[in-house]
Amino acid sequence: MKSLTPLALALFLVGCTAARDDSVAHQVQRVLQRQADAWNRGDVDAFMCDYVRGDDLTFSSGGETHRGWDQTLKRYRARYPDRASMGTLRFDQLETTPLGDAHALTLGRWHLTRAVGNVSGNFSLIWRRQNGAWRILHDHTSQSPAPPTQPAP
Amino acid sequence: MKSLTPLALALFLVGCTAARDDSVAHQVQRVLQRQADAWNRGDVDAFMCDYVRGDDLTFSSGGETHRGWDQTLKRYRARYPDRASMGTLRFDQLETTPLGDAHALTLGRWHLTRAVGNVSGNFSLIWRRQNGAWRILHDHTSQSPAPPTQPAP
Repeated sequence: MKSLTPLALALFLVGCTAARDDSVAHQVQRVLQRQADAWNRGDVDAFMCDYVRGDDLTFSSGGETHRGWDQTLKRYRARYPDRASMGTLRFDQLETTPLGDAHALTLGRWHLTRAVGNVSGNFSLIWRRQNGAWRILHDHTSQSPAPPTQPAP
Repeated sequence: MKSLTPLALALFLVGCTAARDDSVAHQVQRVLQRQADAWNRGDVDAFMCDYVRGDDLTFSSGGETHRGWDQTLKRYRARYPDRASMGTLRFDQLETTPLGDAHALTLGRWHLTRAVGNVSGNFSLIWRRQNGAWRILHDHTSQSPAPPTQPAP
């Protein structure tokens, strides 16, 4: 086998690292797209499939932390009881950092486009890899303040 | 060496796991206590020592994400310009989950007791172990809604 020059070796190693990180980011991005697709057809059960199904799931929002898959589903159903309140979900500005081999952190923004009023905010997700699949172990979601209303003329 | 019974072996393994998890939780708890002590003597520079000192630090709050150690310090200084606004900081309900060997997730609540008005909320911290020390790589902090004001009689 022809030996690699130091430059070629360096490029090879950089390429390997980039490919591995990119792979986690892409896997997570596909999961989030699947979640958004489920939400946008009103299927909250399918949306919830990508959360860890157990009591160790935690969901923080608005200064409160909710625990467990069942309670998280219940909270979603109470907060978004119909298609009008669910609107159309879109994620962007995704940024994934692997935390070892079996965990990752994703930061991003969420946007709900709705006839009853648009809302948006940001989130931090902690992922756990279980049997080759990425599942959300912890979700901390914040809502951006409502934009100032138009002043009266 | 005398062989262990299956029960003794199970207890030994459970003990090892508990001791390791407890150790991470205790180490993180000590860092947070050191942070609170720094805050409570008005030393924001010392408070910031336990954040990752670099551009990969991210701080999310109120729907926004700020990047880098310098910007996080700047934000703290702008938001808490004097001792009256800083008040007395206390953390509680800490819950730490190791994420592999070099990362951990801590959930908890923060409380600022102040003459200008108390505030509190919850946070999610992602820790990275660097040279044996735990540093905050990501902080997502939320403020609880203000309690309803007393209705007029």
